[in-house]
Amino acid sequence: MSESQKRPTVAALLNVRRGREAIEFYKKALGAVERFCTESPDGAVVAQLAIGESEFWLADESPEHENFSPEALGGSTARMVLVADDPDAVFESAVAAGAHCVSPMADQRYGWRVGRVADPFGHHWEIGKPL
Amino acid sequence: MSESQKRPTVAALLNVRRGREAIEFYKKALGAVERFCTESPDGAVVAQLAIGESEFWLADESPEHENFSPEALGGSTARMVLVADDPDAVFESAVAAGAHCVSPMADQRYGWRVGRVADPFGHHWEIGKPL
Repeated sequence: MSESQKRPTVAALLNVRRGREAIEFYKKALGAVERFCTESPDGAVVAQLAIGESEFWLADESPEHENFSPEALGGSTARMVLVADDPDAVFESAVAAGAHCVSPMADQRYGWRVGRVADPFGHHWEIGKPL
Repeated sequence: MSESQKRPTVAALLNVRRGREAIEFYKKALGAVERFCTESPDGAVVAQLAIGESEFWLADESPEHENFSPEALGGSTARMVLVADDPDAVFESAVAAGAHCVSPMADQRYGWRVGRVADPFGHHWEIGKPL
């Protein structure tokens, strides 16, 4: 939690395989900043990232503690909604960094311009802005 | 996105079964506020909630669009980190509303007081604060 945010706060923590690689991906693909990272002797990481002022976490999966990666379950149970002034640029950056396009950027009937990608770790991102 | 937040912003969207019931649960259990909700003719909802100034979304699952609930996959691929001034009270409220205790509130060696619950929709919440 940043000092500028008043409690209570909520942020998602994404379970992944190859956590260290995931941190670098989110930095490159989405402009995330690493705020905190701790690494276990076995190489598993827990990291706090931020995109703008919004924080999220990622951690290497630990199925024994009910922390499953999308690769383990064959799908994801949450997606991330990223709102940006230039969502097309973020979308292109994500795809260039290795995300795959699920739905291309398009104006939606509900009044948003949105596209959707799946990142290399199986998490899905809706990238858009209200029109 | 609230007007007070500068872009870019990121917020999680939780896939659930029984979306309407989930909204009421998060209000009662965690003090969430409903900011926006749209309902399809078939009863499926997409809702934006907030806890404090932190936003999150929930939506009824749609496996045909790769939106899986924890009930569909038998686990969840993200958890929610809720930081509160009185995490014990939030934890108790969640359990009283029907969440089940995964790990009771306890001071952790990494300097946080944290407990963990699974909500009735299969999403996990770590509730805590830095010590």
